[in-house]
This record gives sequence, C-alpha cells and structure tokens, in this order.
Amino acid sequence: MAQFLNSADSGFEEAFRALLAAKREDSPDVDAVVAEIIADVRARGDRAVLELTAKFDRLELDADGLRFTAAEIDSYCAQVSAEDRVALELAADRIRAYHARQMPDDESWTDAAGARLGWRWTPVSAAGLYVPGGIATYPSSVLMNAVPAKVAGVDRLAMVVPTPDGAVNPLVLLAARIAGVDEIYRIGGAQAVAALAYGTETIAPVDKITGPGNAFVAAAKRRVFGKVGIDMIAGPSEILVIADRDNDPDWIALDLLSQAEHDESAQSILITDDAAFGQAVAQAVEARLQTLERRAVAGASWRDFGAVITVRTMDEAVALSDRIAPEHLELCVAEADALAERITHAGAIFIGAWTPEAIGDYVGGPNHVLPTARSARFSSGLSVMDFLKRTTLSRMSPEALAQIGPAAERLAISESLEAHGLSVRARLDRLNKD
Amino acid sequence: MAQFLNSADSGFEEAFRALLAAKREDSPDVDAVVAEIIADVRARGDRAVLELTAKFDRLELDADGLRFTAAEIDSYCAQVSAEDRVALELAADRIRAYHARQMPDDESWTDAAGARLGWRWTPVSAAGLYVPGGIATYPSSVLMNAVPAKVAGVDRLAMVVPTPDGAVNPLVLLAARIAGVDEIYRIGGAQAVAALAYGTETIAPVDKITGPGNAFVAAAKRRVFGKVGIDMIAGPSEILVIADRDNDPDWIALDLLSQAEHDESAQSILITDDAAFGQAVAQAVEARLQTLERRAVAGASWRDFGAVITVRTMDEAVALSDRIAPEHLELCVAEADALAERITHAGAIFIGAWTPEAIGDYVGGPNHVLPTARSARFSSGLSVMDFLKRTTLSRMSPEALAQIGPAAERLAISESLEAHGLSVRARLDRLNKD
Repeated sequence: MAQFLNSADSGFEEAFRALLAAKREDSPDVDAVVAEIIADVRARGDRAVLELTAKFDRLELDADGLRFTAAEIDSYCAQVSAEDRVALELAADRIRAYHARQMPDDESWTDAAGARLGWRWTPVSAAGLYVPGGIATYPSSVLMNAVPAKVAGVDRLAMVVPTPDGAVNPLVLLAARIAGVDEIYRIGGAQAVAALAYGTETIAPVDKITGPGNAFVAAAKRRVFGKVGIDMIAGPSEILVIADRDNDPDWIALDLLSQAEHDESAQSILITDDAAFGQAVAQAVEARLQTLERRAVAGASWRDFGAVITVRTMDEAVALSDRIAPEHLELCVAEADALAERITHAGAIFIGAWTPEAIGDYVGGPNHVLPTARSARFSSGLSVMDFLKRTTLSRMSPEALAQIGPAAERLAISESLEAHGLSVRARLDRLNKD
Repeated sequence: MAQFLNSADSGFEEAFRALLAAKREDSPDVDAVVAEIIADVRARGDRAVLELTAKFDRLELDADGLRFTAAEIDSYCAQVSAEDRVALELAADRIRAYHARQMPDDESWTDAAGARLGWRWTPVSAAGLYVPGGIATYPSSVLMNAVPAKVAGVDRLAMVVPTPDGAVNPLVLLAARIAGVDEIYRIGGAQAVAALAYGTETIAPVDKITGPGNAFVAAAKRRVFGKVGIDMIAGPSEILVIADRDNDPDWIALDLLSQAEHDESAQSILITDDAAFGQAVAQAVEARLQTLERRAVAGASWRDFGAVITVRTMDEAVALSDRIAPEHLELCVAEADALAERITHAGAIFIGAWTPEAIGDYVGGPNHVLPTARSARFSSGLSVMDFLKRTTLSRMSPEALAQIGPAAERLAISESLEAHGLSVRARLDRLNKD
C-alpha cells in the first residue's frame, strides 16, 4: 500500500520532502568494467565485439553475422501479425506527424548596422540507436527514437539490439523498418555503445547515440560522451495524476499502475482535493493488483514509492506538481486546460480523463522519451532537436564593421587579447585609408 | 612554425588524420578531489565554502561577505571608463537582439483524429553562471551566458566569480549588471559549482549551471550533472580559415593568431587553394609573433597545433572543413555565401573578409560559446534553448480515443504491459456502453 499524505497535516512538508528525496535507483558501479570493454573495442574492433557478444549474449557470430541482412529482416517482419503491423504503422505515422512540426526554421536578416546575421540547422550525419534486448524489448521505443532522427534528416541511422541466445523480437525489427533504420546489428551492452562511438571494421562510427539501456549501457554512454553526442540518461519512470472526485477511481488506478508495472523503482503519485476519492483510488489499485500480470513489479513500486496526497485546493496541487517536476503529468480535473497552463515543470502533460498516459507511450504523437528524476526543471523530452545542430552565421559589410568594430577592439583590449583587437583594427585602418 | 600539408601529396590523408586526432588537451585527473569538495559543501554548506575560499583564493570571508552587495557593485562599476561601458552596452544590445530571435514558439493544433496536440516552452526557474577569475576574466563571457538566460526568461540568475586575494575585475561586474544578473557571489572552483547545485544557507540552489572554468570546475560540472543541467564542457578554442589568394595575408594571420593567443592548446588552421598565399600568411604570422603581447602563448599554439593546408579546389576545402567540424569557420573567398551554404558541420561561420572572428567574440550578436573538439558534428553553441525546456501536451477527445486507442492497446499487449492496455480499454468500454 502506498503512503497517504495530507497537505493539512503538520508533518506534511517534511514527509513531502522525504518523498521528493527518496532514492529509487540503485545504480551498480560498473564503470571500471565498462572502461575496459570500451578500451578493448577501440583496440581490437570486431574481434572484441564478437568475443564479448559470445560471452554476454551466449551468441557465436563472425563479423559477417553482426549485421542483420535484408532477407533476415524480411523473414522476421513476416512473422508479425497484420493487427500488430497496422498498430505500429498508425503509431509511426502519428509520431512522424508530430515531430515534423518540431522542425525549426533557418533565419537570416540584416540589422540596422548593416550586419547580415542568422543561423542554419543541419542534421547529424550519422546516429546510433540502442535498443535493449532480453525481457523488456519495446518496439515503441524504436519508433520514438528512430522516427525523430529520420524526420530531422539523419542520413545514416544504425541500430544495435542484443539478441541473447539468439532471441529476436520481430516487432522490434518491423518497427525499425517502418521508421527507416538503415543498419541493424545484433549486439548490445557497453561493447555496442563503444562500436557505435569509435567504429570497428564492420560498423562505421556515428556522431550521436540515443536510446535506453541497463547500467552498463548508461555508463558506456557517459564515457563516450564528448566523442559523440548522447541523449539523456533516463531514470525509472514516474507519473503524477492530479484528479478531482468526478473521476472513475478504476481509471485513475490503472493509470497509476501503468507506470508502476514498468519497474519496481517506478513512482506513481496521485494528488486529489478529495480524501475519500484518494481512498477509493487506492482500493481500486489493490483490487487490480489481485489479477494484474505484472502484479509483483507493480505492487512493489506502489508499496515502496507510491503516494496519495490530499490537498485543500488545486492551487496547492499545482505548486506540489512543480516541485515534483514529473516526467508524466495527467490532469483529470474539470478545468484541465486551465490547470495545464499553470504548470511550469513537466515532461509531458496529458489533459483530461480521456487521455490516459498510455496513449502517449504509443500513439499520441509526442515522444515518450522524457526527463525523469525531477530533471524536467531543466530538460525536455527527445525531439528532432536532438538530431539537429545549429550553425550561426554572420557577415559584416565594411560599413557594419566601421560601426561596431571599434567596440570589439575596445573589449579585446580590455581582455588583453591584442590579436583580437588587431584583426579588427587592420580592417578599420584599410577603410579609413580608402 | 605551423605544419604545411598539401592535399595533392601522397601522405596527405595520413597527415590530415593525425592533425584531426592530435590530443591538444591535457586534463589533470582532479575528480577525486572534486568529489570530496562537493561532499563537503553538501555536508557543511556555507562553512565549507568559506574554508575552501580561504584556502584556494586566500580570501577570508564570513557568510555575509559571500555575496557582493549592491553598493559594492555600484562602486566597482563606477571604476569602468565611459568608453568601456559604451562598448559593453553595444555588445549586450546586439547579443540581446540576436538571441531574442531564437525564442521558439509554442504550438497547438487538432489533428484529423480529433486529438489536440502541441507543446509549450518554459524557462528554467533559476540558473547559475560560472565566471573564471584570476588572469583570464572575460566580461564578454558574462554577456554571452547571462543575456541568453535573461532573454529566455530565467527568473533568478546567480553568478559566481572567484576573487583570488580579493582581486575584482570591475568590467565583469558591470557586464553582469548590464545583463541583468540577480546575485553575484565571490567564490569559485568546485566549491562554487557545488554551492550552486546543492545550495547552502546563503546560496539557494539553481536548476542549470553554465559557463567556462578550469579542470576543477569542469569536473564539478560533470559530477553535478543530473542534479542540475549543465552546458557543454568546452575544450580549447579553434579556428579554421578558408581563404583564397585575394586576401591580405596580414588580416588572415591576425585572424589565426586571435585564436592562438587564447591558449597554448588552441588550434588555428588555414586552408587555401594557393600554396604561395599560404606561405605569405605563415610569414605574416611570424612577423606578428615578433611583437604580439601574448606571443609566447600564440607562438606555442601555432607551432604545436597550427597548420596551413593547400588544396586543389574549394570542393576539397569544404570536405576537409566538414571533417574538422570547426568551432569557428571564417570564409574569406570570392563566393563566400555560396561556400557557407555547402558547409554542414561548424559552430559559427564568419562570411567574407570583413568579418574577422573577433567580431563574433564580442559584438556580432551570435553566441561565442561554441562546440569545440569536433563536437559541431552533433551539438550547437549556447542559445536561449539552453535556458528553456519544452513540455509536450496532448488531449484526447472521446472520439479521438475511440479512433487511436485500440492501436495503443494492441501495442501495450505486444509489450506485455497489461495495465497500459487496460487503462485504454477501461475508457473504450465506457464509450461502447454509452
């Protein structure tokens, strides 16, 4: 059973702080092992990758077998049911349409001084997508990473997915094909991240690596950061639901459980202005936990990290929500749109009771890769921006340089950077002479 | 003397690769010391910060003295000459105007299924700006970090700047005031980063930390990343100039030296299609190095990392430039605009011979905090985006849920996430019943 808090109680502030500070993740320190694996792949390329794959995935390959052939992908994709294929295509279409709207514009203008200024966006040339294998293989994550990369215009998108004991999830390969992934390699772990970052004889290096993974993958991404770009290192999933009494407690219970079932470290919180409604939701959670397939995981998450917070007003709910800065925020209240406008820190907001968070995991359109662990205070979900970079542009006319150059020279001198100043002065002198 | 390469030579590819791979930075491993300092500040707050400031900056303060008072700032600002003040204000105005154009739009639309989708940008609530003290104190860096934060709408901007032995640069304080910095603390090093990230009795914690610093500051930023957001960890500065023979060799020499004078690890490269012009520039560099104030630094950089590359065609120049992915790219060629359009990877492009890179360091308008060490392949310069985050929004109507909900349910089942599917199914059942 989750804990119950009430903002009217004297001990509330302390209890709420403890809830915020709860350490949910136990990251094993695998950094030394990962450093060795990366060094090995850098030194020995394919051979290291093949040996590590044999060791960790119990899969004997040669270099030619690292990459799925088109025929192999065809064959796995053919195993997917028509219904699943249609659902994946609907999801991909909606994710593509949403992310296409994110494409930023180039700009160019000439200002009053006569300086032409602007910027231009260009895609990352090559990106790598890590997809976990084993028990939790999520075709939806393939779409959420690969579609924005392709919308951004990434020319070469290479995916890695471990296939322990040779097990392949056909839906993952179909999702990759639908999203336009260019190369798929059956490798995983830190060795796959190292191969993407540094390249091997078979795998060309990429410029950016995204996608979730276990502690080894996360540590490897941290280590290769700088050599390549990486996306965020995601923590366990979270949901905050703000709901008034005019909701079906079972709907809200299922929404809370749809985060809890991800992971024992996931966190589901309900904030309501009606204590009795909070109790009813908690009872509905217990009822659903009797039969839920993943009841062991969901039950542990709800017991250890779940919370039902009763507040006096929706103003309090907004303030607490911003302190939580939730990854997912569901607003099941009468004036949901108005409440949404008052929220400052959240990865994604699901507005109204007809928008269960699970819609956003699959088919809503927005990305499901979102900032966790309160990082919505300073970061955003995955988007096309993660696969683009901006080059700033400036072009001075002689007149513009005459107008603003002396200030640059002055500041250069004040910073004791003489050559900076001289590079401007030499040009100004020419103008004065002409 | 820099090295000379010619793309027509048989050994060119190997020599160019060596140039790309040259390790210019020698980062001392200070991570263990930094971890201790951060733990100390977290445990003891102000007391730790004060003791560390006494130790490293030889400055005895009490908690009340940590922050510059408004009167102190007034007094230092009054020491700045009118000319310097005018130059700083011109720079701030131009940086503000450029960054104001970067502000992204919120979006909201209803799609064919009846789903309302969109996103909203909000500023980071509180940001911290690190400003190095000691020998290289750059008021221009204060403007380049603080102005975008304030344009983005950051409510509270706290700056830290060490004042070793009590030495204060009035221009740094004036730049902070012009840019709208809200709080200024006379602390630096890892202890200042820790104070910004975790807070002390005197200093409230921030959500994002930007700004350059030495190895201790860089290591501290890496360590607090996750707790707060950080900007890039910048490496030594670089410039690539592509110039044809129709240039004054002295102008190009000064542009190369304006990077070289920053740091012995800086790198200046010239690519030209005229070997004789390349020689002339190298001679002009040597001539300027006779008298340049920072000739020791600039000379070492030019000798160890400088290069003059002769190519046969400007097509080659474009291809090599994209492999270098330079922080700063100056195009001093006849068709400079056309050439700029063909460049894919560069932090900032300075178009035409009347646009020395130094203009961009101070008064151009674009940011001078730019991706180094080839990271322009996957990242961008500092911008208002670094101080904003995006919340995605979705609102399903019952009709929209009826249309796309079944696909979400199907995918949830395929991923064995039953509660996800049930949260959609419970709502669909209600619709079917109504």
